[in-house]
Amino acid sequence: MEIINKSRLEAFSDGVIAIIITIMVLQINVPTRGSWSAILAPNFLITFGSYILSFMFVASFWVSHHMILAPVKTVSKKLLWVNLLLLLPMSVLPTVTTWHNDFVNSVAPSVCYIAIYTFCVLGLFVLSKGAMKHVGESHIKMMESVAKIRFWMVMFGLVSTIGTFFIPQIASISVMLILVGYHTSVFILNKKKWHGLIL
Amino acid sequence: MEIINKSRLEAFSDGVIAIIITIMVLQINVPTRGSWSAILAPNFLITFGSYILSFMFVASFWVSHHMILAPVKTVSKKLLWVNLLLLLPMSVLPTVTTWHNDFVNSVAPSVCYIAIYTFCVLGLFVLSKGAMKHVGESHIKMMESVAKIRFWMVMFGLVSTIGTFFIPQIASISVMLILVGYHTSVFILNKKKWHGLIL
Amino acid sequence: MEIINKSRLEAFSDGVIAIIITIMVLQINVPTRGSWSAILAPNFLITFGSYILSFMFVASFWVSHHMILAPVKTVSKKLLWVNLLLLLPMSVLPTVTTWHNDFVNSVAPSVCYIAIYTFCVLGLFVLSKGAMKHVGESHIKMMESVAKIRFWMVMFGLVSTIGTFFIPQIASISVMLILVGYHTSVFILNKKKWHGLIL
Amino acid sequence: MEIINKSRLEAFSDGVIAIIITIMVLQINVPTRGSWSAILAPNFLITFGSYILSFMFVASFWVSHHMILAPVKTVSKKLLWVNLLLLLPMSVLPTVTTWHNDFVNSVAPSVCYIAIYTFCVLGLFVLSKGAMKHVGESHIKMMESVAKIRFWMVMFGLVSTIGTFFIPQIASISVMLILVGYHTSVFILNKKKWHGLIL
Repeated sequence: MEIINKSRLEAFSDGVIAIIITIMVLQINVPTRGSWSAILAPNFLITFGSYILSFMFVASFWVSHHMILAPVKTVSKKLLWVNLLLLLPMSVLPTVTTWHNDFVNSVAPSVCYIAIYTFCVLGLFVLSKGAMKHVGESHIKMMESVAKIRFWMVMFGLVSTIGTFFIPQIASISVMLILVGYHTSVFILNKKKWHGLIL
Repeated sequence: MEIINKSRLEAFSDGVIAIIITIMVLQINVPTRGSWSAILAPNFLITFGSYILSFMFVASFWVSHHMILAPVKTVSKKLLWVNLLLLLPMSVLPTVTTWHNDFVNSVAPSVCYIAIYTFCVLGLFVLSKGAMKHVGESHIKMMESVAKIRFWMVMFGLVSTIGTFFIPQIASISVMLILVGYHTSVFILNKKKWHGLIL
Repeated sequence: MEIINKSRLEAFSDGVIAIIITIMVLQINVPTRGSWSAILAPNFLITFGSYILSFMFVASFWVSHHMILAPVKTVSKKLLWVNLLLLLPMSVLPTVTTWHNDFVNSVAPSVCYIAIYTFCVLGLFVLSKGAMKHVGESHIKMMESVAKIRFWMVMFGLVSTIGTFFIPQIASISVMLILVGYHTSVFILNKKKWHGLIL
Repeated sequence: MEIINKSRLEAFSDGVIAIIITIMVLQINVPTRGSWSAILAPNFLITFGSYILSFMFVASFWVSHHMILAPVKTVSKKLLWVNLLLLLPMSVLPTVTTWHNDFVNSVAPSVCYIAIYTFCVLGLFVLSKGAMKHVGESHIKMMESVAKIRFWMVMFGLVSTIGTFFIPQIASISVMLILVGYHTSVFILNKKKWHGLIL
């Protein structure tokens, strides 16, 4: 007697992620001068580049969220909460990104930055584990392979978080490596194993 | 000739609640220093902890909203308005939470804080009462048991509001007790009575 | 070969209206003191009361929008644009409301305030006229009666706008009269003519 | 085994576009005086006029987005990413518009302004090319004609961007010409070729 369909879970998540991805751009201050130098200043370039990167990251989380829930039909109350706990670290992304941009070479903001990103990937991992219980046999294998990749990304994130305590620059590089690494692995997996199946 | 389906009511509520849950995080000021002390300062910890708590609260309201409307098929114009009147106190949550955080030991912000939360629970109670008219026999009993719990939460909220006039610290504790109390009661109910049914 | 269904028109409108209704509350400044006098100050009470009123207004617009589109099945490209032109004055509501609150006794903000509200009601009127072309025979009569009420509200709004040029206080009163007048008329109509039909 | 339906792609895009269209109005500063001169000042008129224009532009993008995806049934992971890359320049629109408004006669903001708009039209062009792969035979011809118009709009935007390096005023005029030109072309096409078909 599970009466909950997944559409509202998706709609609510879409709303929250749409707001997160859009408010990050609000934190780009409109330059106070009208010259090229205003946007070529290192400060502006870092902020803007970081926005593009964060956009790609949140976009990537959304695509993953989409892929995890696509084969699911009904959801349990527990899955609603797992999803909400994934949205929690995601909602902190804009704040922690701004803090990290302001102090790229400081330990504390860098550690928080990579830690929050790792939490988001962990959230997706837990969500996919939960989603597997609501999915037909045919999808389980694919989902498990991707979950394994995600697991190693979480491990890599944790090691990077520890490393960032000593060398703060590790944070930015690791975040980028997780983004690139995850998509490359899934891409190769799709090619090699499932011949065009989508995950 | 009820031509209104519930999907738009849900979509609009999802939008409003998604915005409420996300703008609360905007009120966390990005620390102006890059050291650990910046986020370990009591002020920041209170703000951040309060954000987590508020997130859990709004998330819990959303799950309740979801559960109340899940068995409903069509809605009346009256239910649209009941739902809007529930969203009104919810929309004030970010503002009253910030005010309360700024003056945790003052009477006025504490009374408003607990009062608005009580209003939200009251709104959910009225919404569930209204939803029962659009629900099949099989769900009525479950919904009535949960409505009873919600009724006692409202009563507890009202008593706490009065108590907060004398001891402002009651507000924070009561808000947490309502969150924990409600979920524990529903959890026990689910286990004991409905063997895994979801509410 | 009309391939457009109405669900995206509704979803987009829901999103825009949800943001409008929520950002208005952001304009309530969190009081800078923790005493009762901070929220009992006339300035705060006007701002807060005006928020409640605006919330009711936008909520009422949303319910009307809902009711107009409920019997519609497919939409034309023209209706998409009519809907967007309705959302344009609605999006200006928060700004014009704040300006009016700041200068309740000045002519210019009061005229703009009542004019924008009248534009919104006009937008709903035009939308309902457009929607009638996509609706079955059985709903036309009801929709025409409500459209007539809306037409007279627009007329009343126009007269009030002219009156506001001379007495600025007319604006607030007229806005309230339109809200109450519209709902009373529709309520009476429902009772008298359609015995419980919903519009 | 494409398990992805297009509804979430639409819902997420609706959310992002709804936020973009609404936050632009937040950048209109509420006038600090209550007189007519406050809103008749050239500065305010430029900001407000620019808001109306930007609203029409984003509205037009949304209608185009709607029309492109209407005949599509299922989507690929690639299309999800194409869509996200279209949303990226759109999310920068509010910021670049504000910068351009602040320095209408400067080269740098004008070049960025027209460049970002051109990117958005390019994004729609790429999206429609991608969508064609998921569309039945009957729609392909129409979509190709519209894609051709969009292609020339992108070309015109590129030439205008180069021209703006020499005469900054070209930016505003070109943006308006793209808006008017696109809709006129599609309107004529609809009349002449498809006798009322919608695109």
